[in-house]
Amino acid sequence: METLKTQVAIIGAGPSGLLLGQLLAKQGIETVILERVSGEYVLSRIRAGILEQGFVDLVREAGVSERMDREGEVHDGFEIAVNGERTHIDLKTLTGGKTVLCYGQTEITRDLMEARENAGLPTWYETSDVVLHDVKTDQPWVTFTHNEVAYRLNCDFIAGCDGFHGVSRKTIPESERTEHERVYPFGWLGLLSDTPPVSEELIYCNSERGFALASRRSSTRSRYYLQVPLTDDVEDWTDDKFWEELKRRLPADAAEQLVTGPSLEKSIAPLRSFVCEPMQYGNLFLVGDAAHIVPPTGAKGLNLAASDVAALYQILSRVYRNGDRDCIAQYSAIALRRVWHGERFSWWMSNMLHNFGDARINDMDAATFSRFMASELDYYLNHEDGLKVIANQYVGLPYESLK
Amino acid sequence: METLKTQVAIIGAGPSGLLLGQLLAKQGIETVILERVSGEYVLSRIRAGILEQGFVDLVREAGVSERMDREGEVHDGFEIAVNGERTHIDLKTLTGGKTVLCYGQTEITRDLMEARENAGLPTWYETSDVVLHDVKTDQPWVTFTHNEVAYRLNCDFIAGCDGFHGVSRKTIPESERTEHERVYPFGWLGLLSDTPPVSEELIYCNSERGFALASRRSSTRSRYYLQVPLTDDVEDWTDDKFWEELKRRLPADAAEQLVTGPSLEKSIAPLRSFVCEPMQYGNLFLVGDAAHIVPPTGAKGLNLAASDVAALYQILSRVYRNGDRDCIAQYSAIALRRVWHGERFSWWMSNMLHNFGDARINDMDAATFSRFMASELDYYLNHEDGLKVIANQYVGLPYESLK
Repeated sequence: METLKTQVAIIGAGPSGLLLGQLLAKQGIETVILERVSGEYVLSRIRAGILEQGFVDLVREAGVSERMDREGEVHDGFEIAVNGERTHIDLKTLTGGKTVLCYGQTEITRDLMEARENAGLPTWYETSDVVLHDVKTDQPWVTFTHNEVAYRLNCDFIAGCDGFHGVSRKTIPESERTEHERVYPFGWLGLLSDTPPVSEELIYCNSERGFALASRRSSTRSRYYLQVPLTDDVEDWTDDKFWEELKRRLPADAAEQLVTGPSLEKSIAPLRSFVCEPMQYGNLFLVGDAAHIVPPTGAKGLNLAASDVAALYQILSRVYRNGDRDCIAQYSAIALRRVWHGERFSWWMSNMLHNFGDARINDMDAATFSRFMASELDYYLNHEDGLKVIANQYVGLPYESLK
Repeated sequence: METLKTQVAIIGAGPSGLLLGQLLAKQGIETVILERVSGEYVLSRIRAGILEQGFVDLVREAGVSERMDREGEVHDGFEIAVNGERTHIDLKTLTGGKTVLCYGQTEITRDLMEARENAGLPTWYETSDVVLHDVKTDQPWVTFTHNEVAYRLNCDFIAGCDGFHGVSRKTIPESERTEHERVYPFGWLGLLSDTPPVSEELIYCNSERGFALASRRSSTRSRYYLQVPLTDDVEDWTDDKFWEELKRRLPADAAEQLVTGPSLEKSIAPLRSFVCEPMQYGNLFLVGDAAHIVPPTGAKGLNLAASDVAALYQILSRVYRNGDRDCIAQYSAIALRRVWHGERFSWWMSNMLHNFGDARINDMDAATFSRFMASELDYYLNHEDGLKVIANQYVGLPYESLK
């Protein structure tokens, strides 16, 4: 077995792991990234595209913002349509100047990968049999296989950035973690196409036929979503059927302007709220989807991963700068407070905007729940305090600093 | 059978029916009130004591505010305590000058009863066998028995102010109404005592042992509540046991100042969210608890009845003033929009502040739900927009006017 050595072993080369690696490199901290699949496969995943200011600031701090700053679209607002009636959420005015940036997760990942490669920092793709060892000690280590060769990676810390299905969370004994979960009785069918988007801003549509989202990646690339039953397969949905259904759920004036075209990608994702507590176990830190999943309503997934990265970056910088290991224990509380805010916001937006069919929710039937949610939309969309609650959470709550 | 005649038959001599009667009398509109129990029994019911400005204004318009204006306490704020940590909700500042009035429902009812008696307006107590007839026609009538004599009351309109268990709602055929309901897995045990209240303002307490409310009727009369299992009987709770448990749930500094004493009244009430739609059927109008019930968290029950009264008062005034019967059809929509806001607020406050034990809520276990609710409190109590959402709804949303 070949033995390697680094300061921080990062499990997973998604945007969280790559961003953490770039930030730590800026502080002169060594990292090795281990990734299960190929770089091409990582880049083939289509994900969200709305970045909070906190995320953008981190990417800038990491020195990888050049293309993002050039190509990303600043969004001053978004829309919520309820049965065709559109309300503009003026983020900039409601939050005192804050906005979000529309730039695809795939693009961020590509930029980070290139920066890492250009800096000559080690990323091992297509590794298998990854096992984390002695994470409760000061000398944790990771074993893995690459090209049929077994390796041992000694390190000081391990950052588990390997997603919901990764090995990192499962390394924490079940007796030492609590998992919270809510699974929704529907999924999102997404379609990507090289067509001009129907709107300059995102439109979240609540309709009797179910939720729809008109989203975009650029002025020539659209991303649309439809709420669909979990029993549906992507093969059930031809492009034509997708566009027809989308038109029925969009506000009439938007539907009229919709430009359709062939899909580049089409997939169905289930909706899930999930949190693992705590997010730290000895010298193992869970980051992003490894510890928490949100439904995509409100675009919080990547942004919550970013605040985890920010917290861990602060901690590891302090540890290596002045040997203060006490701050390590702050990670879980700092990360989880913001994670729960994002979980709650995503859950709330999902509850308000979807059609729950005949499910039973909160010990009431779906018809009653939908009346509560209609009143919720009526209140929050028609009162300034309510609009501010939506806007301030949509642009992202401030990151907390270490004590 | 003796035949009587009036313009508006009011079923129920609780505060809604009595207030409506006084208001209509001011417009020269005749009413007869029919009540199932005695006046003394009506006055023995202990209910909420927080009045929104809209309610206060109606009582003034009815000319029955003399004692309320003298004895009622203006409350500029209230407190929410989360595991002992107190947050002051400064209603006056957060709402731009609005407050609530602390004055017991029993006192309001007494004032209204006396005013009606002094005005010589007819109230029939201890009536039985009340049946509503031909409510879909322009000549509805009511039959009832009083002192073993059968009566027929002819009228133009019927106001169903006879509460959740009354006959009015059930007069609407089941096929013509939808009932929405959520029953909570706990109740409130209330204790009334002639002891100085622990606080000048109400304190809503969320604690791991369950919810508690420190409330008051005056500087010498306290009203306290404890969340208890629905399986508890009031006999399970001696005064001593009540005070001991209350001290454990109050913030420590409040518990130290608590003055205890013998109970004047002690009772357990279940918590329920309930709405009947529509609230109008021909010339029958449902008012207050006859159409909707809220859990007491947030003190919205009587206040929602008041906005129903306000809407019906506007409508009947217009009908008798200029014969415009078209406005009648607006009642249900106007009343229900505000009812759902109150239902939603009460449901939300109940969800945030109670301990749901091991119930399953919203397709998640209670532990997960409680983490969402802890984050909800964390957000709303620590951000100005959130505090405004609480305060603006607590003081009461504006009444809507007729079109």
